[in-house]
Amino acid sequence: MSVDSTVQNSHEAFLTARDARLAVRAGWLDVVGDALEQHRNDLVDVARRETHLPEKRLHGELTRTVFQLRLLGEEVREGTFLGATIDHQDPNWGMGPRPDIRRVNVPVGVVAVFGASNFPFAFSVAGGDTASALAAGCSVVHKIHGGHERLGVLTAEVVGSALAIAGAPPNLLSVVTGREAGIGLVEHPLVKAVGFTGSVHGGRALFDRAVSRPEPIPFFGELGSINPAIITEAAWKNRPDVIADGFISSLTLGVGQFCTKPGLLFVHSSVVEEIKQALGARLDSSNLSDKMLNERIHSGFLASRGDVARLTGVETVAPGNDNDPPAPAVFATSGKNAAKTSAVLETEMFGPAAVVIDYDDHDELVGLIHALPGQLTGTIHSEENEDIRSLVQALGSRCGRLLRNGWPTGVTVSYAQTHGGPYPATTASGSTSVGTSAIERFVRPVSYQDFDDHELPESLRESNPLNVRRRVDGEWS
Amino acid sequence: MSVDSTVQNSHEAFLTARDARLAVRAGWLDVVGDALEQHRNDLVDVARRETHLPEKRLHGELTRTVFQLRLLGEEVREGTFLGATIDHQDPNWGMGPRPDIRRVNVPVGVVAVFGASNFPFAFSVAGGDTASALAAGCSVVHKIHGGHERLGVLTAEVVGSALAIAGAPPNLLSVVTGREAGIGLVEHPLVKAVGFTGSVHGGRALFDRAVSRPEPIPFFGELGSINPAIITEAAWKNRPDVIADGFISSLTLGVGQFCTKPGLLFVHSSVVEEIKQALGARLDSSNLSDKMLNERIHSGFLASRGDVARLTGVETVAPGNDNDPPAPAVFATSGKNAAKTSAVLETEMFGPAAVVIDYDDHDELVGLIHALPGQLTGTIHSEENEDIRSLVQALGSRCGRLLRNGWPTGVTVSYAQTHGGPYPATTASGSTSVGTSAIERFVRPVSYQDFDDHELPESLRESNPLNVRRRVDGEWS
Repeated sequence: MSVDSTVQNSHEAFLTARDARLAVRAGWLDVVGDALEQHRNDLVDVARRETHLPEKRLHGELTRTVFQLRLLGEEVREGTFLGATIDHQDPNWGMGPRPDIRRVNVPVGVVAVFGASNFPFAFSVAGGDTASALAAGCSVVHKIHGGHERLGVLTAEVVGSALAIAGAPPNLLSVVTGREAGIGLVEHPLVKAVGFTGSVHGGRALFDRAVSRPEPIPFFGELGSINPAIITEAAWKNRPDVIADGFISSLTLGVGQFCTKPGLLFVHSSVVEEIKQALGARLDSSNLSDKMLNERIHSGFLASRGDVARLTGVETVAPGNDNDPPAPAVFATSGKNAAKTSAVLETEMFGPAAVVIDYDDHDELVGLIHALPGQLTGTIHSEENEDIRSLVQALGSRCGRLLRNGWPTGVTVSYAQTHGGPYPATTASGSTSVGTSAIERFVRPVSYQDFDDHELPESLRESNPLNVRRRVDGEWS
Repeated sequence: MSVDSTVQNSHEAFLTARDARLAVRAGWLDVVGDALEQHRNDLVDVARRETHLPEKRLHGELTRTVFQLRLLGEEVREGTFLGATIDHQDPNWGMGPRPDIRRVNVPVGVVAVFGASNFPFAFSVAGGDTASALAAGCSVVHKIHGGHERLGVLTAEVVGSALAIAGAPPNLLSVVTGREAGIGLVEHPLVKAVGFTGSVHGGRALFDRAVSRPEPIPFFGELGSINPAIITEAAWKNRPDVIADGFISSLTLGVGQFCTKPGLLFVHSSVVEEIKQALGARLDSSNLSDKMLNERIHSGFLASRGDVARLTGVETVAPGNDNDPPAPAVFATSGKNAAKTSAVLETEMFGPAAVVIDYDDHDELVGLIHALPGQLTGTIHSEENEDIRSLVQALGSRCGRLLRNGWPTGVTVSYAQTHGGPYPATTASGSTSVGTSAIERFVRPVSYQDFDDHELPESLRESNPLNVRRRVDGEWS
């Protein structure tokens, strides 16, 4: 089927879906989750063959994906994402008489979603972007990632059958494959928003198309991140083994193929030699067992690792190798050099490699952090009695999520999560692609002025038949 | 001073302002409002000479502007815009153990604001975009509109002195003039968001620059709107005079120079002749007394009016004239013709002119509404017993605010307001530039994972020292 027909059909589905009651819409999300559970073994099996990801990881990811669908379903039932707000008529309003005016969020329309290479479930056909768009009341056309097309098609079949049985409108979730189809989606007039997870290069190219349309549309892209982590002198002195082990573990998890992999380690110059030694020793015996996702990602990693290795003033602590999986690599340089050689701070190596950068004092470190491109995460390891306020503030100005004494891989799906950040971490720093707030990306507000009660959407009627949380005359219910 | 220096200084102001306590930040908004009140007569005097707007209107607009500042100040004190959300550690979280994670909205940085020609106070130096950016904790560099530069400079002086006395950081609000400076603002790396009110042509050009930067930034542009209004057959039959008078009044208010001026009147074909007659008769005796804002707007209006008058199948009901102010003009055409000649539905005439379009049935009307570009407002006049659901839904799919039995000019500043809509009404349909939700445009979320209580922003500490509304473990306080 052509992209145009697919989008047209998706639009038809949207016209029905937008009117579904909240409980019905939430039920669709549950049904998708149930269907994934029911076909768990088949799905994991296909995923394993296409991605080289280990079975345990895939099962965990599927669990996460199902949980995410159900949590968003609960959020739909709860209804706060509607942002229902009522201002009653007020003849004494300070700027002059106020009419009766009421606002509710409505779904934007067809959403195009681009799946990620490294999360065949959680950021793919039935992943977070799809779940939050469906939760918002949108329909979805998903561009299956080329790295796991068979899985994408199977997932779409599983989900599609389940939705059909549940009585959802046909084509509420559909899929396309191939680069041209992806471009066609972004440029289609009936597509009203895009969710994307992938590389800076590919994401920016699609972003540019989305904003160059006659009608520009919002492009929620999660493009890349290097994820700085800071180790204070005191932290290292007090718990060198915990920190070194934790870092190596986070660096090598999933062969380093996470957008939240810690890729820069800022350490105090008084301990940098110790740290390099500790990391080098651990990497000598580090043995990764899973191949990388695919050959393209493997060769891309080797290329970016080579770029970093060849930068002026960059020393190799652990060289890694060219095998698949490659042995983990660690490089090192001084903060002074990184300040001059900006590629040290700007090159994402998507795989098991990181750069240790030593600093002399907080001022230098703050300067380096401010020189970083936008990041999904920023981490600090410090002791309780240390004043880390300036460091936390600097990290906060460049990152969407800050961690203390932990590691950034592992992104919980919850109410308070932010998986986002300044560009290029995302193309929309006001948003998150993980957690319940992800729904907000796919709605827009509509206000109703002076309508009779029965003409209003149910969420705005005086009696609050949907029993959703509302703000009324400035007060929260 | 160069644009670069202005932005650098503004950034310094931001670095201080972002840490100010909510009550202090709110106090700055109050102080700006107080200063405007104190200099009311001087400001109105200068505005009168630069804009030709009548004294009464300018006083009303200044009242609105001061009210807006104070309402946003209250919103800052209330603190809900922080979106404070707390998820406590939960070993039994459905997808696996959840860390302690807490989110708060932080200001984005320096905001560039472009003033509007037609609102020298409410959408200018101390207008809604400035107020909401300051409320968010940002600093502002305002590009003064060329139509009222003296007023802009005077307002900046008044506001600047008041903020200095109140102890706000220097350069919290600064101004620049001239087209090149405006471009320089949008392209400056330290500018992190743009608020714009103006034409589609100028706004799109700046939007294109904002999204083409190495680091694209959000561009909140309110670009234009034609504002369709529907009159059902029954509505016209029951109250022709009220409707005709109301329409002419809204059409000619402020010489038609409102982005919410009703520019398209959809009427049932059985009453179109009556309606044209009623409007024509009223316009014969209509006498506008105030000149248009400036010569450029006057000539632009005459040009767009001429474009519409010359469209195929468009009939002139009341021709208007070329005076300043021009006499109001009304054109008419059939829905069939409008469906073929899309310029009828797409040409904004910024001044006192509108087009009457007759339709035969709801299906035809719904088709015409769907063919409209995005709109700030959509209006429907109908009787209580009529089923208008399909019409309201169609309008809702193209508009940010819907009105029943009223007229769209007059935009109250309140909690439930949406002054926004699909492109080109705005470049960011998820947002509003009027009302308390306008603050949300200038913040982004940051999440804190596993921080000690005393290291967290106050809004996220366990004891809730700021006493802001929060969501805790999914429950709303």
